[in-house]
Amino acid sequence: MTSIEWIAGKVRFIDQTRLPLTESYVETAEVREIGDAIRQLRIRGAPAIGVAAAFGLLLAVNEPSVTGPPELKRRFLEAREFLAKTRPTAVNLFAALERMQRALDRSPGDDMVAMRRALTEEAFAIRAEDVDACRKIGEFGAALLPNGASVLTHCNTGALATAGAGTALSIIVTAAKLGKITKVFVDETRPLLQGARLTAWELLREGIDATLITDSTAGKVLAEGKVKAVIVGADRIAANGDTANKIGTYPLAILARHHGVSFYVAAPVTTIDVATATGRGIRIEERDGREVTQISGVRVAPEGIGVYAPAFDVTPNEFIDAIVTNYGVLRPPYDVSIADLCRRISRSEKAP
Amino acid sequence: MTSIEWIAGKVRFIDQTRLPLTESYVETAEVREIGDAIRQLRIRGAPAIGVAAAFGLLLAVNEPSVTGPPELKRRFLEAREFLAKTRPTAVNLFAALERMQRALDRSPGDDMVAMRRALTEEAFAIRAEDVDACRKIGEFGAALLPNGASVLTHCNTGALATAGAGTALSIIVTAAKLGKITKVFVDETRPLLQGARLTAWELLREGIDATLITDSTAGKVLAEGKVKAVIVGADRIAANGDTANKIGTYPLAILARHHGVSFYVAAPVTTIDVATATGRGIRIEERDGREVTQISGVRVAPEGIGVYAPAFDVTPNEFIDAIVTNYGVLRPPYDVSIADLCRRISRSEKAP
Repeated sequence: MTSIEWIAGKVRFIDQTRLPLTESYVETAEVREIGDAIRQLRIRGAPAIGVAAAFGLLLAVNEPSVTGPPELKRRFLEAREFLAKTRPTAVNLFAALERMQRALDRSPGDDMVAMRRALTEEAFAIRAEDVDACRKIGEFGAALLPNGASVLTHCNTGALATAGAGTALSIIVTAAKLGKITKVFVDETRPLLQGARLTAWELLREGIDATLITDSTAGKVLAEGKVKAVIVGADRIAANGDTANKIGTYPLAILARHHGVSFYVAAPVTTIDVATATGRGIRIEERDGREVTQISGVRVAPEGIGVYAPAFDVTPNEFIDAIVTNYGVLRPPYDVSIADLCRRISRSEKAP
Repeated sequence: MTSIEWIAGKVRFIDQTRLPLTESYVETAEVREIGDAIRQLRIRGAPAIGVAAAFGLLLAVNEPSVTGPPELKRRFLEAREFLAKTRPTAVNLFAALERMQRALDRSPGDDMVAMRRALTEEAFAIRAEDVDACRKIGEFGAALLPNGASVLTHCNTGALATAGAGTALSIIVTAAKLGKITKVFVDETRPLLQGARLTAWELLREGIDATLITDSTAGKVLAEGKVKAVIVGADRIAANGDTANKIGTYPLAILARHHGVSFYVAAPVTTIDVATATGRGIRIEERDGREVTQISGVRVAPEGIGVYAPAFDVTPNEFIDAIVTNYGVLRPPYDVSIADLCRRISRSEKAP
């Protein structure tokens, strides 16, 4: 299963809102449909959103009505602004838009064919790097786990959330294939049930022993000593390691620490936002209260009740035992290890 | 709104599974329907279950086909055994069955009219004591709260869960009427959404400012300093204060302690089970996994996924700042304060 790919001038993606009941794919040549799909969470997961945004820009500049460089630039800008407004927290979205902008800026400004080629190469590079990053995160993370480990995860961080094998779920699947993992507890992840709908579906497909729990059952699972590690993804990691991730991640981190259980964050380095010093600087998206008051279209709360529905919370760096990236495992203090990593990447990029 | 009452030889109860969409009441003269309603959570909340069980026994012995003392005793025993199997954790259920048994044992064994009268008086006493206990818990608990407090609660512990005004929710409603509470955060309480369906409904009816959150949003609400206290009910309290309550209570206690927020348990003394030394001795009911994989009859998880669905968790006494009972506020160490309270009650019962 590939969550998002480019096929013959169109973007093909799996509609995640219809899982697990229906495995259906959407093909589109419209950037607007990509943006709507991101906003409606038909495409979701920070890395997958980044790839979708890059492909979306590519759709915009490839439209037959684009007849020359000025029109291409205008459409690019329009699409970029539209896509940037879909979801505010995932840094990968903005990173992908920025990379595509730079690719456009580097290309000859008077050659439409060359501009399209440059943007195509960049979008495919973003996708390929994500696939590669997922594989490496899986390998680095699996090496951290003891043999016979049971783990707990939250939300969906698998093949659906990325263009590749996932982030936290890549670790879990890789470790399971090595025979290191015996059981996975999956938080259902209210309100949108990405754990119940998506992670459970992915783990069943992989043949991994998975047990679904409500989010608030995690406390009892940890108290019973049932898991050796909690592994989650990230939507944005600040320069000091503070991590914004799906709402419910922060209480898991507190509980894991309380029970002496390792708490790991898994993300490609593109999720690290060094321009944001700490978690306090991360803007947290608030979702429509109806995502809480209605489930599968059925109202479960009385009309008129107030709702507080932040999509993410921030886990302070002190509760994170390691951040598993595609460049290796970062350890506290994260301000130092993240700065070191950035220098290392910067040097290797500048190398001939 | 009265959740359960005795009207003209029948039991009338509100069907909690149909709330908040429909406020419908069931009238029955069949003990079997009472037991089924308890099992299906149409009647729920530890104190309400106790009252329902007492009324259920009364229905059994009042049946026209009961023609003499031996038949009455047989029917009583049969109904008692049936009711005892409905839900294993709520101590109030067993306490009510036991009280009714003692009332029967005390009554003249050869006088059916006297036996029925004794059982009627006992059932009505159990109900009246619950109403009184709710009022007192509300008053003792409200006195604990600072002015201008915002609080967070879990599950439903209100008029629906009791014959009176509730336990934890009685505190909240009493404090709100005194102008002490400015805002209530309500955990939706997966899997059965008693917070979203029932507590939200009760608070709206009371005109109290209430905000619904998913259970895993509580961590962020606490981290943001939005609440001054977490107040929950109890299904069974061990002799050392360890408290079994709705799944998700334990992580709230850990989070409250971590954030320096008071964590209060509210329950009538009948919920204290001195025969159980610690929380480890409390049997925890496991519910059908379909309560997690299906919501409002709609499947939200893939077929074949494993589910772990304990109905309750146990909060160790060390994380409970006070237990608010109808006899006053208990403080740690609870083994001492609970033993003291039991001696005090025992003395007052023996007094002329």
